[in-house]
Amino acid sequence: MSKGNEMTKMDAMPHHLGLFTDLYELTMAQVYLEEELTAEAVFSLFVRRLPKRRNYLLACGLDTVLDYLQTLRFHEDDLTYLASLGKFSDSFLDWLRDFRFNGTVYAVPEGTPVFANEPILEIAAPLPQAQLVETLVMNQIQLQTMLISKAQRVVTAAKGRPVIDFGTRRTHGIDAALKAARAFYIGGVAATSNVLAGKTYSIPVAGTMAHSYIQVYEDEAAAFRTFAQRYPGTTLLVDTYDTVEGVRKVIELTQTLGADFKVGAVRLDSGDLLALSIETRALLDQAGLDSIEIFASGGLDEDAVEYLVSAKAPIDGFGVGTSMGVSADAPDLDIVYKLCEYAGSGRLKLSANKPILSGRKQIFRLSEAGRYARDVIARADEVLPGQPLLEIVMRNGERLPASYVDIEAARIYAREQTALLPEPIRALAPATPPYPVEVSQALSVYQKEIEDRMRG
Amino acid sequence: MSKGNEMTKMDAMPHHLGLFTDLYELTMAQVYLEEELTAEAVFSLFVRRLPKRRNYLLACGLDTVLDYLQTLRFHEDDLTYLASLGKFSDSFLDWLRDFRFNGTVYAVPEGTPVFANEPILEIAAPLPQAQLVETLVMNQIQLQTMLISKAQRVVTAAKGRPVIDFGTRRTHGIDAALKAARAFYIGGVAATSNVLAGKTYSIPVAGTMAHSYIQVYEDEAAAFRTFAQRYPGTTLLVDTYDTVEGVRKVIELTQTLGADFKVGAVRLDSGDLLALSIETRALLDQAGLDSIEIFASGGLDEDAVEYLVSAKAPIDGFGVGTSMGVSADAPDLDIVYKLCEYAGSGRLKLSANKPILSGRKQIFRLSEAGRYARDVIARADEVLPGQPLLEIVMRNGERLPASYVDIEAARIYAREQTALLPEPIRALAPATPPYPVEVSQALSVYQKEIEDRMRG
Repeated sequence: MSKGNEMTKMDAMPHHLGLFTDLYELTMAQVYLEEELTAEAVFSLFVRRLPKRRNYLLACGLDTVLDYLQTLRFHEDDLTYLASLGKFSDSFLDWLRDFRFNGTVYAVPEGTPVFANEPILEIAAPLPQAQLVETLVMNQIQLQTMLISKAQRVVTAAKGRPVIDFGTRRTHGIDAALKAARAFYIGGVAATSNVLAGKTYSIPVAGTMAHSYIQVYEDEAAAFRTFAQRYPGTTLLVDTYDTVEGVRKVIELTQTLGADFKVGAVRLDSGDLLALSIETRALLDQAGLDSIEIFASGGLDEDAVEYLVSAKAPIDGFGVGTSMGVSADAPDLDIVYKLCEYAGSGRLKLSANKPILSGRKQIFRLSEAGRYARDVIARADEVLPGQPLLEIVMRNGERLPASYVDIEAARIYAREQTALLPEPIRALAPATPPYPVEVSQALSVYQKEIEDRMRG
Repeated sequence: MSKGNEMTKMDAMPHHLGLFTDLYELTMAQVYLEEELTAEAVFSLFVRRLPKRRNYLLACGLDTVLDYLQTLRFHEDDLTYLASLGKFSDSFLDWLRDFRFNGTVYAVPEGTPVFANEPILEIAAPLPQAQLVETLVMNQIQLQTMLISKAQRVVTAAKGRPVIDFGTRRTHGIDAALKAARAFYIGGVAATSNVLAGKTYSIPVAGTMAHSYIQVYEDEAAAFRTFAQRYPGTTLLVDTYDTVEGVRKVIELTQTLGADFKVGAVRLDSGDLLALSIETRALLDQAGLDSIEIFASGGLDEDAVEYLVSAKAPIDGFGVGTSMGVSADAPDLDIVYKLCEYAGSGRLKLSANKPILSGRKQIFRLSEAGRYARDVIARADEVLPGQPLLEIVMRNGERLPASYVDIEAARIYAREQTALLPEPIRALAPATPPYPVEVSQALSVYQKEIEDRMRG
């Protein structure tokens, strides 16, 4: 990723993110400093349980998090605001004024399949620093991991047909729309309708026309003719009044325009997409227009796409909006950022039956017959068979060169990684049994030690 | 809202929002200009159907939309990017370079209850302008309307007990978290944990402590003591190891600290909140600590809050996070932005059984016995009984002074408006029958005329 791209990317983000944190991160940080609790803490970010309809997640959001950690500062107006709350000492505000994150980050690359309890990243930093960054780190990893994981299901269902992101108007705000477009592209979506995302992340942009365009003209045929002449190869939206009549008007255009007729596709956006696509295909083929493709949209999700593909609907591409843009069936992840070590000593929380794996960790992924077969979550210093997934990406607050991954490379990596998952795990339906994730012998023993110490 | 506040608010948003639009808005706008389709268009923004578990929505997001319309510009780097797409003429790029939105906006005030098919806003502007702003206008009104409407349910369920927004870490990105905090506050939430939102919108901020804070100490009692000494009146999180033991340690603090003991509340964050709150209350009361409040959090939504309140759980306040922050049961609205008039002539879309009310409209809200009783959607120039809801808020691209509403005033307005709804509509359960919304005689006749004309 070039420096130029980074600049653009930050430009699309608010500039003052220092205060994008929960108040308690600041009040806790102040006590840590006053009590000299500034030894190295290790926090682990992971998803406790997968959503019901997810057999795996793809990790995403690391690039944003590393940018944030590297550029995190507190400005004078932030400090003035904090002073006004009456909770913070001058010495704490001075500490914030000089704040530079200088911790170390281990993470799985963006596009890596992950499962419940597997660390997506681990941050090792002086306790007040590691605590302070919790809110934004969780916010961004959850958002982008959730969205790429949803998109990957839609892409899987489309079986090679292009999927276009039409979600912007119903994503949750500006940041979500931009991050969605990026995550979707890494997850295999072909293009986005969001122009700012295209510019910011160098993602292909695409679009057709809206119903309003057709309605402005008194005559649907005139609307088609004007747009087709202006944009050779364009897609015409045929369902504003009557889909089949709309298709007939496209066919009539071949006579009106003659050699200038260069329509790429028609778009169906409502009604029974299976029946209408079959009828549309037949009409186009009868007219010798077999090169015109059929593009479908309108409330689609991965289930609708899978249904249409398995029913052999003659649809060449899908526009998917709201359901993918908000991850409608799983609009949040049970993601947590938990202290697992402080001053070299393991930590865990006992209550509420929500175990946290203690200490620094590594994930080893084992293959059998060319497919991923099982994972082992281990202590960070273990060397076990399989591929270790967590890599160091930031040291002493500086991103390592390997952490800058081109979006095209991330997209290829995500595709390759997903292809290596067992078929039942890649399928849309819940896999039984789920992908096996074990805890290493050494980690189990360590975990037991810590538990005994805590109870004890 | 002071000028100073506006600056801060914009600061928390990306600066270049010109390209935050779907590609087709730009390709359509170019054709409109080339074809001289630049007469005034009226677009209506409304929700086609309410989500299953919403009897009403509260409108929100207008302030963002008006800021956006007033400041919308295209910068040179935007134009350079668009030129690189090979779809846009120099004259269109020149038009974008000089772009100023100079349309007129009619809207219901933020915090107004709205129902299906009722315009939240109507934009009247030269067609290319009105088209171009669609994406962001929809994005922001959907986000903020969805979030305030969810929050209002939680606030209703809490029956006067304060609700604190803990959602930031799982909202969809930075913009959503900030807009959520603002919408929640208008909807009756007492405070947010998000410090940047507090600064940006002058919302009260609140917070307690995290489990990690407790875990850092070898001894839970020491963790409590340090925090309670530092922050008189604070809330202590008691469930890290064992909730009842945690409460006992808080009680023991009275002996350790003596007159310095100034704990405001304990927080329960897991387990059976009803049983634990009863046990906690009893322990505190036995120790003469009846002034210590009990605050509950941990996966709460409006149903959980309603259950706890109706079971008379001795809980004094609720921290609500993920479910409210992503509007988990309804993470999107069926919101649309539809052309309803062009060059003085009504427009509608016939297909797919999704009627659009044609022409400029007004909503009249009628009361009976001091409560809202029914609404009538009418033509804009009708004068009917009841209170008209749509007001002019922007004229020729300039916000009118009345459109600047202080957040405290919006909060009071939302509370008053909600209180005027019939009880079954305010309840969490689906209301049968729903709130009555009719279409005026004149609008019905006009609608029929347009339909007949469209059908030819």
